[in-house]
Amino acid sequence: MNQPLENLVNKFRSLPGVGLKTAQRYAYFVINGTTEGAKDFANAILDAKEKIHFCQECGNYTDKELCEICDKRKADIICVVAEAKDIPVLEKVKNFSGVYHVLGGTISPLDGRGPNDLKIKELLARIEKHNTQEVIMATNPDVEGDATAMYIARLLRPLGVKITRIAQGISMGSDIEYADEMTLTRALESRREI
Amino acid sequence: MNQPLENLVNKFRSLPGVGLKTAQRYAYFVINGTTEGAKDFANAILDAKEKIHFCQECGNYTDKELCEICDKRKADIICVVAEAKDIPVLEKVKNFSGVYHVLGGTISPLDGRGPNDLKIKELLARIEKHNTQEVIMATNPDVEGDATAMYIARLLRPLGVKITRIAQGISMGSDIEYADEMTLTRALESRREI
Repeated sequence: MNQPLENLVNKFRSLPGVGLKTAQRYAYFVINGTTEGAKDFANAILDAKEKIHFCQECGNYTDKELCEICDKRKADIICVVAEAKDIPVLEKVKNFSGVYHVLGGTISPLDGRGPNDLKIKELLARIEKHNTQEVIMATNPDVEGDATAMYIARLLRPLGVKITRIAQGISMGSDIEYADEMTLTRALESRREI
Repeated sequence: MNQPLENLVNKFRSLPGVGLKTAQRYAYFVINGTTEGAKDFANAILDAKEKIHFCQECGNYTDKELCEICDKRKADIICVVAEAKDIPVLEKVKNFSGVYHVLGGTISPLDGRGPNDLKIKELLARIEKHNTQEVIMATNPDVEGDATAMYIARLLRPLGVKITRIAQGISMGSDIEYADEMTLTRALESRREI
């Protein structure tokens, strides 16, 4: 392969989950496309990298000072997430009218990430400033996500704010037969009267 | 999502086989990377699109006048392929010392592609110019690839050049149990004494 082609294939290969064959397919697609298309693609990369930064208030991705969500909604309810990329997924849920707070990860001693590496102080400040009524802990339902949620919940307790955790149980459309033990344990613990 | 992010996600989504989730994953990877990395990526796209064109001799991708293969090897044996992207795959085969010829597709009446849309005249000219001894038809083993191979073979017959077709049969490591009827038919037809 020639140098510019090999170089482009290597760039695509650096993307998460992309192997040699897929990278070649992407590269051929770009080369066989229009010059205009290649320019647009390159500009989209530069533009996104240059303009996108974190919302000063919540840590969401934005190209303005405040993200669209913080700009429009009140912070009566704050939904705490580990990563900014969790926000678009939660935003698909209609009816949720609160704002978000990005921690920037979870407490993970193995990766050398302690509470001080997360945006917890900023969360406390927001709660006090906006007189927030409820904080929903929406970190992942795994060991680190649970530990982080519990740690923050304990810190918030003295503020008198209501603290909730997203429910854990069987996923919609899935099969009890294939559910793992932990999920079933949680699903039984959190059972509700109907 | 904000505009620059959405724009980048859409660009990644235009790549073959990429859905929304994968495109978002790629976009977050770029945004979370270094500015240097984003610039390199954008430049690789522009560079490849700008510098890569088709080899004047065989139609392979190259950034020079002649591709590396045509530049270094004699055209004693020409291996005819449908697309330039088939060449790196065939090049993995050691021992093959011939050159390639890219047709630019296969004869496909349904897609409105006839023999005149393929680089067949160029193939004839190369064979005469280089006094080629053998032409290997390496189009795909499907209806269009077979028809194209047969069509070109008939055209070449008067030139007195040896014309061969890559063998069709059971793939290495695969299982006869799962082979389709057509493949087995070809495998039996092409059986060899051992």
